[in-house]
Amino acid sequence: MKLNSVITFTTDFASADPYVGIMQGVILSINPQCTFIDITHEITPQDIIHGCFALSVSYNYFPKGTIHVAVVDPGVGSNRRAIIVETDMYIFVGPDNGIFSFVLDSPDVAKVTEITNAAYFRPSPSTTFHGRDIFAPVAAHLSKGIPPQRFGSPVTDYVLIRTPEPVLQSTGAIEGEILHIDRFGNLITNITRRFLEKHLGDTIIAGINGIKATRLLQTYTQAEDDELFCLFGSSGHLEVSVKNKSAQEITRARRGDKIIVICDS
Amino acid sequence: MKLNSVITFTTDFASADPYVGIMQGVILSINPQCTFIDITHEITPQDIIHGCFALSVSYNYFPKGTIHVAVVDPGVGSNRRAIIVETDMYIFVGPDNGIFSFVLDSPDVAKVTEITNAAYFRPSPSTTFHGRDIFAPVAAHLSKGIPPQRFGSPVTDYVLIRTPEPVLQSTGAIEGEILHIDRFGNLITNITRRFLEKHLGDTIIAGINGIKATRLLQTYTQAEDDELFCLFGSSGHLEVSVKNKSAQEITRARRGDKIIVICDS
Amino acid sequence: MKLNSVITFTTDFASADPYVGIMQGVILSINPQCTFIDITHEITPQDIIHGCFALSVSYNYFPKGTIHVAVVDPGVGSNRRAIIVETDMYIFVGPDNGIFSFVLDSPDVAKVTEITNAAYFRPSPSTTFHGRDIFAPVAAHLSKGIPPQRFGSPVTDYVLIRTPEPVLQSTGAIEGEILHIDRFGNLITNITRRFLEKHLGDTIIAGINGIKATRLLQTYTQAEDDELFCLFGSSGHLEVSVKNKSAQEITRARRGDKIIVICDS
Repeated sequence: MKLNSVITFTTDFASADPYVGIMQGVILSINPQCTFIDITHEITPQDIIHGCFALSVSYNYFPKGTIHVAVVDPGVGSNRRAIIVETDMYIFVGPDNGIFSFVLDSPDVAKVTEITNAAYFRPSPSTTFHGRDIFAPVAAHLSKGIPPQRFGSPVTDYVLIRTPEPVLQSTGAIEGEILHIDRFGNLITNITRRFLEKHLGDTIIAGINGIKATRLLQTYTQAEDDELFCLFGSSGHLEVSVKNKSAQEITRARRGDKIIVICDS
Repeated sequence: MKLNSVITFTTDFASADPYVGIMQGVILSINPQCTFIDITHEITPQDIIHGCFALSVSYNYFPKGTIHVAVVDPGVGSNRRAIIVETDMYIFVGPDNGIFSFVLDSPDVAKVTEITNAAYFRPSPSTTFHGRDIFAPVAAHLSKGIPPQRFGSPVTDYVLIRTPEPVLQSTGAIEGEILHIDRFGNLITNITRRFLEKHLGDTIIAGINGIKATRLLQTYTQAEDDELFCLFGSSGHLEVSVKNKSAQEITRARRGDKIIVICDS
Repeated sequence: MKLNSVITFTTDFASADPYVGIMQGVILSINPQCTFIDITHEITPQDIIHGCFALSVSYNYFPKGTIHVAVVDPGVGSNRRAIIVETDMYIFVGPDNGIFSFVLDSPDVAKVTEITNAAYFRPSPSTTFHGRDIFAPVAAHLSKGIPPQRFGSPVTDYVLIRTPEPVLQSTGAIEGEILHIDRFGNLITNITRRFLEKHLGDTIIAGINGIKATRLLQTYTQAEDDELFCLFGSSGHLEVSVKNKSAQEITRARRGDKIIVICDS
């Protein structure tokens, strides 16, 4: 039915290996009319929470009908299930390991289907590369309009993972965590604008590894040279940044490190 | 009008973050009929001159009508303007920070338009990611045939930057600079074939960090093993190379380092 | 004839330089109806055997008619030939340096054509970037249905390289070699399932750099934490792995290192 589907990829395959190209070759062999978009292939190896975060801040910018394939799959070859998740807007394909928790947890989910129909797999699937042998051909058949229920039966006991939530401490301070450090060295935290504004307002001091950021700015250019500061990034999360430099290098922060935010009164 | 536009990307986003994929998702949501080509996403962060160089040696190889999007944007969120640049062949979209100087400085430019019409932006644009909220949707609408003048008013006082020019010294030596070091460790300088041939001819000695290259060759394979030599690279610039090895590793040169070229007489 | 060709790329250009984008721009200028797939651009510089391996495990997953372009080309600008290789399924385009040995050595090859017809090159080809000036335009014209014989004359004395073969020693041990180390640190050897099963069966001990792997497993999840183990990877080669960790980091192995496999009796 659909003739030109968009299929996105979120994996931990990086770019040196031919794994992504192979998946795309498998898909084109089934449906030549696909547009492929790489969300990222540099998820930390086997880090489901990292993959979940990257996809959660990206999937929503794609056109209705986009198929989002995620392969961060430490359980490949075990009895972990493979699933299709449908929402009003999108279809998600990948392992049932929690990587789609951001959408499974929302009211938008129409249905989750366990993928069991081997008619849509490559023959004799490997035990180590379901991206090639299961997820790619399933995505390709979905892109041709095969309805999800043809791939297996509905499930309701899918795996959910909790991404780390910010905590309001008894002192009134917020303890958050760094979810991602981007190419510019911006420290992207799990503290959303809504959470911060509800509990602390916008006059804050943030501390990471003993270093303080004392201003919440609107743009990078408002900052002084070498000033560590906070701003809400494009994903709506509180970020810690340094203008034209790397906040990561200055704070030596790593993904998973804590951030403490208090009211500056 | 145009149904299958080519849109290229030159950014400093690298590939680990989902920023490029998000921009492409935004574009596909407006125009599903686009072909995306990545020129590079590994411009040195915030380095406008580096982005200007990469795009300047690449843009000319694309078909007429290609839209070149460049996002190296340290001034994002400030009052730096966003612009559309038209030539006979191409349309360029990005910040007005000089990144298009190579074409703005040429007689080919038809018109420069400041982008102000928010009807073509995403709603409530962020202050940190105009690639997603302004440049991507503007490029998408341009690719559908919306004429540039619909996006804003013409400007003539756009920003120009000077890429470093080679200098002919009073001694007759040429002092140039390394503009880019490629994957193979080739040192690509700002000395063009025309400039060198006009001032020195082709019997030259080049010096970088006290190490000499004494021959100007036609091909890599003419070189001796471990010989540091010069040749004109595929972009028409003088390069310093070592056959099957990295001239960068041997000279410890970095982008911005000087190269001195003298006549070998 | 063909309107929507798939063209793949296997190069040592990496992603920081604009070389790949430039090749794709050249192709789109000749045939706007192409789908580009990157197999990998991170072949070790000038390493033909590495490129040969990457393409050999990938090319077969693409649809009939796919054009595989390979540019790992230390001899560029010399008198090394450029060739087109035809099989029943695919067309390969690249330097005649052995990079297509995996297919040239097989009975599938229909014909090998030396590329000499400059009518299909860019004008005044450079001596350093045949990817842009010869291989890209030739691939583009092939994708439009121009038959290979129009590009030059048949050759039969093409270059073959030998990828390292596993050796059965007089002691009964197999000496193999690491062909590739992937993003996860898996050590992919040249020992195929067929070779191992013929000579040793499946109860084996493998040694790399003095460290032993004592089990041949079916899936990663069967392994104990921190256990170095063997399994057959998705390409059918024996791999040495550690669950959710890097076998490379643990063994300090490098590409080209030896692996010894003996019967565990």
